[in-house]
Amino acid sequence: MGPHPAVAAIRLAVRRVLHDVLNEHSRDHESAAAAVSAGACAGSGTGLLTAPPAPLVLVACSGGADSMALASALAFESRKLSLRAGGITVDHGLQHGSDLRAAEVVSRMTGLGLEPAEAVAVHVGREGGPEAAARDARYAALDAAAVRHGAAAILLGHTRDDQAETVLLGLARGSGTRSLSGMAAVSGAAGRYRRPFLEIDRQTARKACMVQALPVWDDPHNADPAYTRSRLRQEGLPALEKALGKGVVEALARTAQLSRDDADALDAWALQADATVRDDAGLLECAKLYALPPAVRRRIVRREVIEAGAPAGSLFARHVEEVDKLITSWRGQRAINLPGRVVARRQGGRLVIRQS
Amino acid sequence: MGPHPAVAAIRLAVRRVLHDVLNEHSRDHESAAAAVSAGACAGSGTGLLTAPPAPLVLVACSGGADSMALASALAFESRKLSLRAGGITVDHGLQHGSDLRAAEVVSRMTGLGLEPAEAVAVHVGREGGPEAAARDARYAALDAAAVRHGAAAILLGHTRDDQAETVLLGLARGSGTRSLSGMAAVSGAAGRYRRPFLEIDRQTARKACMVQALPVWDDPHNADPAYTRSRLRQEGLPALEKALGKGVVEALARTAQLSRDDADALDAWALQADATVRDDAGLLECAKLYALPPAVRRRIVRREVIEAGAPAGSLFARHVEEVDKLITSWRGQRAINLPGRVVARRQGGRLVIRQS
Repeated sequence: MGPHPAVAAIRLAVRRVLHDVLNEHSRDHESAAAAVSAGACAGSGTGLLTAPPAPLVLVACSGGADSMALASALAFESRKLSLRAGGITVDHGLQHGSDLRAAEVVSRMTGLGLEPAEAVAVHVGREGGPEAAARDARYAALDAAAVRHGAAAILLGHTRDDQAETVLLGLARGSGTRSLSGMAAVSGAAGRYRRPFLEIDRQTARKACMVQALPVWDDPHNADPAYTRSRLRQEGLPALEKALGKGVVEALARTAQLSRDDADALDAWALQADATVRDDAGLLECAKLYALPPAVRRRIVRREVIEAGAPAGSLFARHVEEVDKLITSWRGQRAINLPGRVVARRQGGRLVIRQS
Repeated sequence: MGPHPAVAAIRLAVRRVLHDVLNEHSRDHESAAAAVSAGACAGSGTGLLTAPPAPLVLVACSGGADSMALASALAFESRKLSLRAGGITVDHGLQHGSDLRAAEVVSRMTGLGLEPAEAVAVHVGREGGPEAAARDARYAALDAAAVRHGAAAILLGHTRDDQAETVLLGLARGSGTRSLSGMAAVSGAAGRYRRPFLEIDRQTARKACMVQALPVWDDPHNADPAYTRSRLRQEGLPALEKALGKGVVEALARTAQLSRDDADALDAWALQADATVRDDAGLLECAKLYALPPAVRRRIVRREVIEAGAPAGSLFARHVEEVDKLITSWRGQRAINLPGRVVARRQGGRLVIRQS
């Protein structure tokens, strides 16, 4: 008899990602070996090649159902492959006794056979609000852990439900296709972060923990209505499902993937078109911009404004829209003030975008 | 003292659209006149040009607050411009006494000074569900009325709230950027339909009726939970606003515009790329398709499947995804069955997509 379907599902998802990591790792090692042996041929060294160490994959584990399921699948699958598996839990220090909880998660990871298994304490600042500050601190700690242990990848337990919530949060910003593209399956420096569960629902992860008798911890933050994401999870998404039917989470997750592909293609187009719409001095020419599709033109404008010093997070679609009107509806408008003290004006048929 | 801000807002929105209609009308007339006078030069006729008749603009009016506000603004603004204004109300025959209600709406339109003002009875079929069937019957009747009266445009009262609902309905389909683009400001044959209120909220339209003492009729369908759109309006959207904040409707409407621009640009790219990925026999070459960005490649595939006979409405993202795997993950898959008895297979490095 095979494993429970939920356990089979999480293991398959993790197995696929581990295969990718192994393939990339051996490709990297081959090119490194080729470089070494090229050096040996030139008579520079011994030319002796040692076998590559088995790569290390870490799981970021909060002790919640999603990441405990992920940790269990990583531990199981890694035994069958030539790789080492470890785990990191981040102690955000936001609740009394969080250090004890982190120690408990470490002992659960050790129990699964993960090695190293460690807790990292971070200090959460205030920049960008409580959710963003906690996230920034967490990723900085995970990045440092990856470097310290020489890890090839860090697995994150975001599920399809998390992805759906992320798409809705992006929708609320109203800033277009990129903001609807949710979380990437592969992200971070050199593709360090991997999200094997983006097509697994939260219920499956929870079920997998249950049937494997893994204790899980429900973070009270997840139900705290002070957090936008919690409100979305507890009320917003259920109400949408009631109105639109049960397929909403799946549709949102699919929207993320399609939006990401669309945004990538349009960014590539804008990058390529950028070189064709500048004069000899490198200034953007309005007449040439005007001839581009609005979606491409606005991407070029947006990038120009950000390169002039506007913080991407404060630059909204309506700002770009205003600058775009200097191109499409020119009637002698005055200069436009943008975030980060950036000023955009039209001069002699050129867009001049500079920090003041 | 000027009009109430709500009345000023709806009039401004209508005025802008009427200016567009007038500009296009005079442009069309000039080119027609040029054609006639070219004919006259060639000695073919009298060469006598009569003044163009003032164009007729119709409003589609259900008697609800949105379209009554629209009718009032059209009546007011048309007096100051060289155009005629009329109104059509469609009697769907779905409720007892709907003919009497339609007659009542006609008398209200006449009271506003609209001429012609008429009711058109339609038969609502069952194709595609009750909402789609009513919509199809309604637009067929409006198209016929436009032709019968020689109307230059028909104004529709869809508001920003309707647009937000349409975006969410598209999101629930999970079929990408085009389905998030909502309703167009200009649509239909020769841009017949215009939606002046896409940036006006429902509350403003209602307020404008109130301060102008216009009686409005609340369609019980709008609150009937049997309809997806009603559930969205009554429960889904309010819950989203509670979770994400009051700006959700505006963000959804902005998403519609941005998504429309993105989808247009990508469709244009796909159309242009299509010619570059075919062999001499006109078949799609997998190697060339593979080199395109996924967003562009899948649009080419989707169009090919539809042209082979698959109904667009039954062709989902997952179908296109399957066909795409013949290009990106070829390992000798069997032929793929698609809606409309269309079959896709890979043969000799070509995609062969045909109706069986």
